[in-house]
Order: sequence, then structure tokens, then C-alpha cells
Amino acid sequence: MTLSNQRIAILAGGGALPNAVAQSATRMGNFVHIIGIEGEADSSIEEHSHCWIKWGELGRLLKNIEAEKCSELIIIGSVTRPDLSEVRFDFGALKHLPTILGLTIGGDNTVLSGVVKLFESNGLNVRGAHELAPDLVAPVGCLGRHQPDEMALKDIERAGKLLDALAPLDAGQGVVVTHEHVIAIEAVEGTDAMLTRAAGLQQWGRSKKNTKAGVLVKKPKLGQDMRIDMPAIGPKTIQGAIAAGLSGVAISAGNVLLADRDEMIRRADDAGLFIVGIEMS
Amino acid sequence: MTLSNQRIAILAGGGALPNAVAQSATRMGNFVHIIGIEGEADSSIEEHSHCWIKWGELGRLLKNIEAEKCSELIIIGSVTRPDLSEVRFDFGALKHLPTILGLTIGGDNTVLSGVVKLFESNGLNVRGAHELAPDLVAPVGCLGRHQPDEMALKDIERAGKLLDALAPLDAGQGVVVTHEHVIAIEAVEGTDAMLTRAAGLQQWGRSKKNTKAGVLVKKPKLGQDMRIDMPAIGPKTIQGAIAAGLSGVAISAGNVLLADRDEMIRRADDAGLFIVGIEMS
Repeated sequence: MTLSNQRIAILAGGGALPNAVAQSATRMGNFVHIIGIEGEADSSIEEHSHCWIKWGELGRLLKNIEAEKCSELIIIGSVTRPDLSEVRFDFGALKHLPTILGLTIGGDNTVLSGVVKLFESNGLNVRGAHELAPDLVAPVGCLGRHQPDEMALKDIERAGKLLDALAPLDAGQGVVVTHEHVIAIEAVEGTDAMLTRAAGLQQWGRSKKNTKAGVLVKKPKLGQDMRIDMPAIGPKTIQGAIAAGLSGVAISAGNVLLADRDEMIRRADDAGLFIVGIEMS
Repeated sequence: MTLSNQRIAILAGGGALPNAVAQSATRMGNFVHIIGIEGEADSSIEEHSHCWIKWGELGRLLKNIEAEKCSELIIIGSVTRPDLSEVRFDFGALKHLPTILGLTIGGDNTVLSGVVKLFESNGLNVRGAHELAPDLVAPVGCLGRHQPDEMALKDIERAGKLLDALAPLDAGQGVVVTHEHVIAIEAVEGTDAMLTRAAGLQQWGRSKKNTKAGVLVKKPKLGQDMRIDMPAIGPKTIQGAIAAGLSGVAISAGNVLLADRDEMIRRADDAGLFIVGIEMS
């Protein structure tokens, strides 16, 4: 299903995705209003109808969405989880404070389903970016010029098994495996930090320096709410994979967003890396 | 089973454990000869009969053990896995080169069982430190003054489940969980590096700064060879747990080595952290 003729609010975190989603949504005949989170969202959102809010200004956010008569809400982009002791809550947020504080316990999935419920109880339909911009979702097959070799396919298989084992525990969206050796597992630090770490652990699982080996694999966790927490990769991910000496990146087809796809493919092609979408269970 | 009246060679990596094991073994009436790996082992090993070798000097190592008429070998201490392209193999190592290179593919368990086999095929009995020094192994119960509270017990349970899920994949000896939120998962970077990372991710899973919350849990992987790859904690681990703002450390009783136990307990007691040995499946 795709949306058209709707009034859509986009709550924007960092990165290129919020703007890309806004462009797609506009192209499809929707009215788009972006609310950028200060310190997170990119200034590129200002090319659309927009306003800025601070963390904690939930009341202001809801009022703004109401004033713009939006019925649909998309929450997209990266966020640095704020230190709650430094967040100033506005009056509208205080009304929801018990819910907000309840959100601070538990894994990502618990937290995020709480966020969805909070907006839904305020009459909004929370939508996934993929409902609006199917062209932003990873397809099956190789995205660029390069393909995984046999060793890489083995590494992808092992990585997939590991992520499957972690999925029921609401942990692990990404993993780096080199020659069947599990190099790094992502928890809350995020993919970029994990890749930086992997770059420093290059000696593990490889017999020669300067040989590309190993894969980054990303897929959603079990029960991950694709409306609000869809995994994403972008040029920065590819840059990190290159720096870590990996041979490529594999993603769960249909379940991972591609930020700035062309730039991502260009960098991977230049560096000899593959990017492949695979149907994962 | 404990050993006495034996001639024991200790191949020593870094940290306080090699010397502690040597002291225990000597106390129990064994002759001990330590072979320190240059750049890894602590100079404290020099209080025993000893010599030094470089990575790659397998021939020299075997000759030295033979000259000292040792029949038992203990491999203990931390190592930074060497960059094989920079290791100079001696003649004795070259004979075993196919085996050594075969060891560069696969997870830790695969690598280490290969190492054990290599020494066994040279007529040595590879022994675990716990066979010599039962007092170095984590018992059941609290080691210091402090005890886990209910939240910590929940975190320990979740961490245990996560490590169990990873165990069959030869990955994950440690994990940090705070308020049931999986903060960091250890792969090849080691526990200290994981704790440093966890310290930078403090805002996750906790509602107040300066409140201790979260646990480090360590247990062996499934099929981990306890003779050569027993998990260990020491004062540095406790220091890392303190810096990460954790409330305590839980370890699998009977399956984790304690390096410098008294110093570890002193630091934990002073900082209000618990250290608890738990019977884990």
C-alpha cells in the first residue's frame, strides 16, 4: 500500500532519509510537513514546510501536527538517545510523563511500541517510510557491480544465524563476520560504531593484511516495528565497511531502508565492495 | 583432580594469572617452568624458572619444554592475536605451518582446539589452570560485601539467555544488560573494550545519571575448551564495570578464573559493586 492525497507529518531525526521520504511523499501527491528535532535533523528538511522542536517538547509537537491538519505521522532518521535528566519536558509532555518514563525500561522494541501507542492515542496514524517510498527499500539481488564470493556467502550465512539467535532477545541488528569468525556484534552503539571497532580488529579471521574479507549483515530484530524502527544503511555505512576492510554488505531484502542509494552504490563500486539484498527468514 | 609432583610448563600471555597459577602449582609440589611470550607476558614471571619466546617460535618453545623435561603444559593469560603477516616462524613452526595456517579460519573454539591438538601431537598433556589452582575458580555466591538487587537479578537472567543463544555460534563470552536493555555484546574485542564502550552508552536503559545500574555477565561459550580458553575476570574488569556505572558483575560459578581475587573484591567493595558466582546451565 502506498499513500497519496494525505496530509503527512514527518518527525525527523538525523541523516538523509527524512528528506528522501519527504521528496517521495510529495512526488506521490501528499502534503508534507516536517518537524525536525534540534541537534538531530539535517537543515535540508527546510526545503519543505517545516518547524523545529527540542527533545521533550511533545506538547508543541502534537499542537503543530494538529495545526497542520496532518492525520499521518512518519518517524524517521537517526537519533542520539537523549539523557532524560537533561531533557526539559513541556506541558504537553508532562501529561504523558508516566508513559514516557515507563519507556525508559526494556529493549528497543518495548520502547518503540510504546512510542507508537502514545501517538496513536493522540489520533495519529503512524506510518512506515516504506509505505510511502517503496524505492527506498532494499530489493533482492546485488545493488552495484560486485558480487559476494563463496567465502562471503558462508560468512553471510553464519551472520544470519547469529542475528536469528539474538532476534527473540530484542538485540542485535547487525554483525560483522570474517572467515566464519564473529568479529563484532551490534547492540545499542549502532552500526557505524561497530564498523569502527571492526576496523581495529582486522587481524582476527584474516591471514593477510590488505585483503578484503568479511561481511556486514543487517536485518531487523524479531517483532521490530517496521513503522518506526526499520534498519537503514547509507553511504556512511559503506564508508565504514570499506574502512573495516570488508568485502561487502548484505541486507535483508524488503526490510532495510537505503539512504542515498546512488551515492552508496558509487562508493561500493569504486572500492570493490558488494551490496546484496537477500531474502532472509 | 589436582596435579602434584609434575614438571609443568606454563606458556604465559599477559595479566596476573600466569604468575598466580605458577605460585599455586609450586605450592602444590610441582616443578614449574614459565615460557613468556614477548610483548604479552608480565615480567613478574621471572621469579620462576623461565625463558622468553617471540610469536612464531614454536620450535624453540617445544625444544625448551623438552629440555626442562616437562610433560604438562598450561596455556594461560591474555594475548593480542598477532598479525600473521608480521610473525616470523622458526624452523620448528614451519614444520607445523599447514596446521597453523588452518587455524586462521573459524571461530575461537575451532582455533583453540587446533592449538591443543598441535601440542598433544608433540606428546604434551594440555592442562587447564583450574586443575592446578582450584582457588582461582569462581565459587557460588557473593565474593564481596554487596549483593545484586531484584533489578540486577532480572538483568542477569536476560544476559544469561542472550549468552545461551550465542553460545552454539562460538560467539559472545560477555554482555552488558541495563534495565533489561542489551547495551553491549562482546565478540573478539574482549571484555575490557566492551566495558569501555558501555561506559559511553550510559544513557541507554537508565533514567538517572550517577545511579549504578546494569550488570556485566560472563560465562564460557558452548564447547569452549576450559583447558585453554577459560574466561577470566580481574581488577581491570571491576575497574571497567565501575567506569561503566554498572551495579555489579555476575559470572558462571566453576567456569570463570579470578585473577587477583583480593584486589578485585577490595575495589568492588569500595565502589559498592557486587561480584556474584551463579550456577549457570
